[in-house]
Amino acid sequence: MSAPFTHRIRVRYAEVDGQGVVFNAHWLTYFDEACTRFMRDLGFGPSFWDEDFEVMLVHAELDWSGPAGFDDWVDITVATARLGTKSFDLRFEASVGGRPSCTATITYASVQPGAHSAIEIPPAVREALAARRA
Amino acid sequence: MSAPFTHRIRVRYAEVDGQGVVFNAHWLTYFDEACTRFMRDLGFGPSFWDEDFEVMLVHAELDWSGPAGFDDWVDITVATARLGTKSFDLRFEASVGGRPSCTATITYASVQPGAHSAIEIPPAVREALAARRA
Amino acid sequence: MSAPFTHRIRVRYAEVDGQGVVFNAHWLTYFDEACTRFMRDLGFGPSFWDEDFEVMLVHAELDWSGPAGFDDWVDITVATARLGTKSFDLRFEASVGGRPSCTATITYASVQPGAHSAIEIPPAVREALAARRA
Amino acid sequence: MSAPFTHRIRVRYAEVDGQGVVFNAHWLTYFDEACTRFMRDLGFGPSFWDEDFEVMLVHAELDWSGPAGFDDWVDITVATARLGTKSFDLRFEASVGGRPSCTATITYASVQPGAHSAIEIPPAVREALAARRA
Repeated sequence: MSAPFTHRIRVRYAEVDGQGVVFNAHWLTYFDEACTRFMRDLGFGPSFWDEDFEVMLVHAELDWSGPAGFDDWVDITVATARLGTKSFDLRFEASVGGRPSCTATITYASVQPGAHSAIEIPPAVREALAARRA
Repeated sequence: MSAPFTHRIRVRYAEVDGQGVVFNAHWLTYFDEACTRFMRDLGFGPSFWDEDFEVMLVHAELDWSGPAGFDDWVDITVATARLGTKSFDLRFEASVGGRPSCTATITYASVQPGAHSAIEIPPAVREALAARRA
Repeated sequence: MSAPFTHRIRVRYAEVDGQGVVFNAHWLTYFDEACTRFMRDLGFGPSFWDEDFEVMLVHAELDWSGPAGFDDWVDITVATARLGTKSFDLRFEASVGGRPSCTATITYASVQPGAHSAIEIPPAVREALAARRA
Repeated sequence: MSAPFTHRIRVRYAEVDGQGVVFNAHWLTYFDEACTRFMRDLGFGPSFWDEDFEVMLVHAELDWSGPAGFDDWVDITVATARLGTKSFDLRFEASVGGRPSCTATITYASVQPGAHSAIEIPPAVREALAARRA
């Protein structure tokens, strides 16, 4: 079994709020960036993504367990948590220096590019996601 | 029973992504703004909030059911969904022109201002939140 | 002479940084929102803006003279500062409770929608902008 | 003479607007991140920065000359452009694949940490900035 996919992000000053920690909404942005890199790692580049396959978020659950502050490196692992016919879940686990910080499970619907109606996940995407189950 | 608390937000151009809809992370920012206004409506102003009472997000669940686009007015209702000893849930329901757009249930922990350790929700806050149950 | 166009923004918790003031980049977002409302006030709605007229920022100068903090109301006046053939400048002056906070002069190029090549400012837009000189 | 300091940023999906390019305000965030890395490169870590030296933006000028889109790598060079007694200018030049994209000159005032009143730039900071003139 391969090592889990990991993406690193460094916290910007602009992302830290008056409590000295990353403002909650930015975690969804971090996970979005991690999702992009995960899909790229699976072989789906900008042209594929844009033209033949597109996703929209339909559900997200986040849990915060520890802080991330200015200039911290955040390590985010990404894996497939569920693989349906027209939607799938990715699991994100973020930590700072080994300490758990924020986790999320996000459900993406496969949609007709441009039209936003649900379609089956293309076979190549399904196969790639299946190989990265948690 | 009183009418539910509602806060209106107008979608900024900066908040809409390449798919022409509000980027997912901004919904947490919208709900954070709605939470601030809801707490103000309950009588908790900046000084109270900052000095005697502080919250940290510990859990959030979001569901997207319809789009919000540039310049749309988003109506967000806020109500108390759960009231524990040291934490509580708020329920947010956002719609655009009456069409459901995004909903969320967010769990806030009551923390010692500055120290971030969990403390009981102050009685005055508890009483005010109880009066606004969904 | 008419009163200057003014747009009000309330500072979000998410927009305040570790120094307790609005993070610098958000001022450009505030001015972008004020620009949208100014153009709407001039009669240019989404369809006109999207189909026949589009702008791109080519230059911006900002000066900060005082802080804006969480929950502050920011009043932003907008006026035409320069009117060229293919570009124009808007002047933004932001204040909090009457105290100057941030000002900006932003140069917008009139571009072919979609194509991003410079074109002359449409006559109706020019006329409307001329009527709102500072 | 040493090579100019360069910092790379990859454009997030969240940062691209409906015109398919980085929304204007994010450039100030990019330059803020580049400034942090530049100061770190000069030897000023979090503790120094937070305790003995702090800056506030007082002026910024930005020029846009070319687009940056989703997933693009943006290379930002940073150099000292002016060195006054209580303030200094940094020059930022951003490019995508060698094509100029956005440049900025930003004026930072040296302030008393916490108090925000102007103070002289500490000698160690001055010396380091002087060594990195454009």
